[in-house]
Amino acid sequence: MTAEPDVTLTQDHFLGGRVRLWQPVAGYRAGVDPVLLAAACAARSGQAVLELGCGAGAALCCLGARVGGLRLDGLEIQPDYAALARRNLSENALTGTVFEGDVAVPPAAVRQVSYDHVIANPPYFEASKGLAAQDAGRDTGRAGAVPLADWLGLAARRLKPGGFATVIQRVERLPELMAAFDAVLGSLELMPLIPREGRGPRLILLRGRKDGRAPFRFHPGPIMHPGAAHGFDGEGYTLLFEAIFRDAASLPFPE
Amino acid sequence: MTAEPDVTLTQDHFLGGRVRLWQPVAGYRAGVDPVLLAAACAARSGQAVLELGCGAGAALCCLGARVGGLRLDGLEIQPDYAALARRNLSENALTGTVFEGDVAVPPAAVRQVSYDHVIANPPYFEASKGLAAQDAGRDTGRAGAVPLADWLGLAARRLKPGGFATVIQRVERLPELMAAFDAVLGSLELMPLIPREGRGPRLILLRGRKDGRAPFRFHPGPIMHPGAAHGFDGEGYTLLFEAIFRDAASLPFPE
Repeated sequence: MTAEPDVTLTQDHFLGGRVRLWQPVAGYRAGVDPVLLAAACAARSGQAVLELGCGAGAALCCLGARVGGLRLDGLEIQPDYAALARRNLSENALTGTVFEGDVAVPPAAVRQVSYDHVIANPPYFEASKGLAAQDAGRDTGRAGAVPLADWLGLAARRLKPGGFATVIQRVERLPELMAAFDAVLGSLELMPLIPREGRGPRLILLRGRKDGRAPFRFHPGPIMHPGAAHGFDGEGYTLLFEAIFRDAASLPFPE
Repeated sequence: MTAEPDVTLTQDHFLGGRVRLWQPVAGYRAGVDPVLLAAACAARSGQAVLELGCGAGAALCCLGARVGGLRLDGLEIQPDYAALARRNLSENALTGTVFEGDVAVPPAAVRQVSYDHVIANPPYFEASKGLAAQDAGRDTGRAGAVPLADWLGLAARRLKPGGFATVIQRVERLPELMAAFDAVLGSLELMPLIPREGRGPRLILLRGRKDGRAPFRFHPGPIMHPGAAHGFDGEGYTLLFEAIFRDAASLPFPE
């Protein structure tokens, strides 16, 4: 990673140009997931947020573009991505520390701080599933070996009492994710993201609260694309998701 | 319980009169849950089905009315309900054995048989929540102390390889229910039941398969009542649920 123009990087725009993000041409690249994760995080100005596995910082930068005055920290195992996240936070005029280290064995520095919110978009595929990786970066970003229980365990330990952990994940891992939340947090809330009316979700958002005691809640799933269940999968989004992607609108868990 | 006319019982009709069910006037009485549980069970003629906590046999009778040629066994802890379930099976011309006993400590007889399907509508409220019971029957029916892990553990042990367990439950217990399924069964499938468009589910159906290895699936939630999300909660059902309640239609998990 250097300050010189680097042909292995692209600068991509998110939230209607409010965020400009350097990402590697190859390897793990941010899609809609970190944008939705940031939109669902209920952080308020003045609070501290930690993202576990922050990659190049897409979710942190999107959250910082929507809510001013946040401390935006990240933990990232890959030094190149950690460096990119620092650069992206800085170039987007945001404030935070990116720690280098493993979610399963977090560095001492991250263990000194408590947060109002912890967010994460953990790697999707278990290493045991043997997904062939295209390169080392994509491998770690998409096939991390760390069980979700370790992600949630660290999240719970780093949260202030009453703080929230919010995770976006592919629906296939909901059982493991829900068990990991249930073991360490309370007041669980599930928000499935419905691709189109009449379809099942492919992505889900799950939130839990440190010391929370409210019953589990299963919210109506917001619909991402307009049109009939069996129609063509076009590129268009519903007004809500247009507002999230273009205008930095939030995707709040219902009151 | 006697064969004489009994003022403590009513005979109620289900599935457009296809099922007539003796139930106590007071205590636990079948609502829509056992009807939906029966509709969601994919049993085929010639197969053997076990219901854990069968109460007066509402789900077993509804399933038997939809699918002919089933062996319909039940396990019920309360002798009065077990006797009612036997009477209801018999008066509906259905075949099966109702065992008396505890899900946590099942009788030897139930441990001799293997089933193609196990179904259950476990009591909703944990005893630890301290729900005040109106009477002993309702207490056991609604506030049973047996953890869902015990229900699923017994279900898994009694299933043939490739057999299915199907459970209906209030949404608040989804985290506990999913963990209980995940510990002993595979190929989990969630079908939330949406009261009305734009609402979150109050009831969920969860299914798992013995020795199943397919990824978790989260199906679109069928909608029970027509009309807008914020409209009046009328009595009417959507065509699908009309067909289930009036015409003994099935509520299949999608292929």
